[in-house]
Amino acid sequence: MEAEAFRTAAREMIDYVIDYLEGIRDRRVLPTVEPGYMRGMLPEEAPREPEPWSAVLSDIERVIMPGVTHWHSPHFHAFYPTANSYPGILADILSGAIACIGFTWQSSPACTELEMNMMDWLGKLLALPKEFLFCSGGKGGGVIQGTASEATLVALLAAKARTVKAVKAQHPEWNEASIAGMLVAYTSEQAHCSVERAGMLGGMKMHLLETGESLTLTGAKLEEAVKEDLARGLIPCYVVATLGTTTTCAFDDILSIGPVCEKFGLWLHIDAAYAGAAFICPEFRHLLNGVEYAESFNFNPHKWMLVNFDCSALWFKDASLVVDAFNVDPVYLKHDQQGVVPDYRHWQIPLGRRFRSLKLWFVFRLLGVEGIQENVRKHVRLARRFHRLLLEDPRFSVPFPPAMGLVCFRLEGSNERSKMLLNLIRESGKIFLVPGGVKETFFLRFSICARTTTEEDVDFAWREIQSLADQVAPDV
Amino acid sequence: MEAEAFRTAAREMIDYVIDYLEGIRDRRVLPTVEPGYMRGMLPEEAPREPEPWSAVLSDIERVIMPGVTHWHSPHFHAFYPTANSYPGILADILSGAIACIGFTWQSSPACTELEMNMMDWLGKLLALPKEFLFCSGGKGGGVIQGTASEATLVALLAAKARTVKAVKAQHPEWNEASIAGMLVAYTSEQAHCSVERAGMLGGMKMHLLETGESLTLTGAKLEEAVKEDLARGLIPCYVVATLGTTTTCAFDDILSIGPVCEKFGLWLHIDAAYAGAAFICPEFRHLLNGVEYAESFNFNPHKWMLVNFDCSALWFKDASLVVDAFNVDPVYLKHDQQGVVPDYRHWQIPLGRRFRSLKLWFVFRLLGVEGIQENVRKHVRLARRFHRLLLEDPRFSVPFPPAMGLVCFRLEGSNERSKMLLNLIRESGKIFLVPGGVKETFFLRFSICARTTTEEDVDFAWREIQSLADQVAPDV
Repeated sequence: MEAEAFRTAAREMIDYVIDYLEGIRDRRVLPTVEPGYMRGMLPEEAPREPEPWSAVLSDIERVIMPGVTHWHSPHFHAFYPTANSYPGILADILSGAIACIGFTWQSSPACTELEMNMMDWLGKLLALPKEFLFCSGGKGGGVIQGTASEATLVALLAAKARTVKAVKAQHPEWNEASIAGMLVAYTSEQAHCSVERAGMLGGMKMHLLETGESLTLTGAKLEEAVKEDLARGLIPCYVVATLGTTTTCAFDDILSIGPVCEKFGLWLHIDAAYAGAAFICPEFRHLLNGVEYAESFNFNPHKWMLVNFDCSALWFKDASLVVDAFNVDPVYLKHDQQGVVPDYRHWQIPLGRRFRSLKLWFVFRLLGVEGIQENVRKHVRLARRFHRLLLEDPRFSVPFPPAMGLVCFRLEGSNERSKMLLNLIRESGKIFLVPGGVKETFFLRFSICARTTTEEDVDFAWREIQSLADQVAPDV
Repeated sequence: MEAEAFRTAAREMIDYVIDYLEGIRDRRVLPTVEPGYMRGMLPEEAPREPEPWSAVLSDIERVIMPGVTHWHSPHFHAFYPTANSYPGILADILSGAIACIGFTWQSSPACTELEMNMMDWLGKLLALPKEFLFCSGGKGGGVIQGTASEATLVALLAAKARTVKAVKAQHPEWNEASIAGMLVAYTSEQAHCSVERAGMLGGMKMHLLETGESLTLTGAKLEEAVKEDLARGLIPCYVVATLGTTTTCAFDDILSIGPVCEKFGLWLHIDAAYAGAAFICPEFRHLLNGVEYAESFNFNPHKWMLVNFDCSALWFKDASLVVDAFNVDPVYLKHDQQGVVPDYRHWQIPLGRRFRSLKLWFVFRLLGVEGIQENVRKHVRLARRFHRLLLEDPRFSVPFPPAMGLVCFRLEGSNERSKMLLNLIRESGKIFLVPGGVKETFFLRFSICARTTTEEDVDFAWREIQSLADQVAPDV
């Protein structure tokens, strides 16, 4: 495919993409295909010779679209949002053309430097303590990771390396593997499954601490667990606090957790994967108070900040701690600038990296901070509208306080009734919701996700839910 | 930014991208900026209000391009290639618009199913044993990872989980952390630094075994190391063999390594990150003989197969072993299809994933297998041309056999002479090469990288090298 063929094809691809996104409200949000649907639609082997572009373009509707769950439909209310914006797509076109691998500064200086600058812009918007910013001239700075899962694991590995080194210095006769085997991490039982998984993958015991009715981890609960572990001869090391949990958007009490981490020398990592975007609005920034206690802070612009996946923002107060944990330095990667600017390959699990900061740059400039803030505020307004509608119908209850763009709700009565309602919603396929469970309570999560969701879409979803609730018998 | 503004901007972005790629030969391949160059060119904070597209577009040349190392310049001969093709960019536009997160089948069935089908297409092209393919109906299959570094780590973690479980079954009284502390992995001293790093991150001792003059790890050397470790009470677990090492493109002897792994029950992972693409050509497929001994095999279509980064292809013979190591299953991710189709989130470190298989599909169809093969063959021909030119000039020597698209060379005499030559090449900036080192020998690596490199570009590079070599005194 040469340049002129690409020019024509790319224009058609762009037109297709616009038609898809502008018309997405009319597509069924959930596909109806069965597992294995695609195999019979494709040849068994790759074609020997090139096919025409028109064949590929027409196969998008034939093969792909029947199996797409439309995450950007205004009727998508499952999980949390994933971002999609025209500026994000524009930036990825440029990133795909430059297609540099930014593992060191020299391998493409612009790739490292734009990332440093964008992470500072973003950090300033969040009013992060200056130790987290490159412009402070200290040891801190930010980096784009692929996902919050990776950020949690990277911070865990850095915490592990720091603690093993410190304990080894005190007890030179202990071997490092046995020190590592004594380390313990802590998080809330409400934390995302990727936090537990980071413990599994990083080989660190992960305590899932109870939260009580508020679903909030407190410093008192953490301190109790830390003291128990110390009494058992274990070595407390790493704490993951969540701001905006996945199930109910609960906020751990970092103002009480922070001082406990300080007292016992634990690495505090704050995961605000979804809710973090809201902190760019002054009225929500107070929810981040306590971040000054953290060694590392992470949130996903690719969730609720209109930057297409993947773009997970992670800051360290002292990046040398992660570099120490990750650094292996062979001769073919050495260059003269080492030490002056970060070599981001030491800040992450993969070695290679795409030019992802272009997405942040384009989104900031083409939407403006006010445009990004307005998207957050609109989602919160729409969630509050849905909450008000729920409160007016006595058949429903709201088991946990709504927060940000999420409202958890259930039918009064047994869990079975809410499960039946969810099944009816799934079968009808007009809107997409997923369930949540906390202890014995089963509920539905209604999450505002698409950039284009309107009041009418919320009302549409509510009418659908109300009408299906009519079909659920009161005594199930 | 609304649809019509995007349509106009996207057309301009496409035109820019075509101008960039078609004119890339005339740009200086290496930038001349100093670290920190960008900070003064950008405002200190993100703009409050949207800026016009024209301002962003014009800043690409002003701010970004001065700091770009042009990986797709035909004068780029550093590292190994990273892929870039028009079909790859087209597919990413679509992927950015669909912007689904494919962590489960249900979260977007097409995302999982196209990946299964493309990994089967690719596996068939490589003539992988059928146990690695989904269409065999067994436990095997392929998955797209971000990078080879992640693939090596994922396989290590799966091997670790398998071995800990097996040892625990034999010795129920041992605790799992202490079993994990006894595990050992093996690779060649020539393996990529990410292999050693996988050991660091995964908490497994990694022996870097000597290779002798051929730079090739053999089964005999591996067996010797395994027996020593067994005698010391350690537990051999995981072996990474490389086909096409980073420094010299050497090939480990998997036909002798495989039986040793079989004999001692070790997990054999084969990393063919760069060279793997060549195995789609029948004349190179013999280099993959022995893959039948592997539990996992990985190569990067994003290097030498015209699929834009990131797309690292990883196959397992028994994927349940990696699922066992990675699986945590909360209620909000449960769905009805579990077990029938893979939930790829259990096959990788991140939870979220982009719709990357579209890139494979577009590249296969728009270039055809023959087009992809021709790119490999052209690179090999061009490397042989460069090798012939070297042999004709007695000032140069070739310390290791050229392989694939890589030729290692040096000036006769001291290492200092070759270092001086490299510095002159860097200062001149017409071509970009990086050095390599094996034991005491310093050399330069000449790698054919761009899709568009021609015989004339190789001759241009050779004249540049010859003329700069004239400036290196014979007695340095």
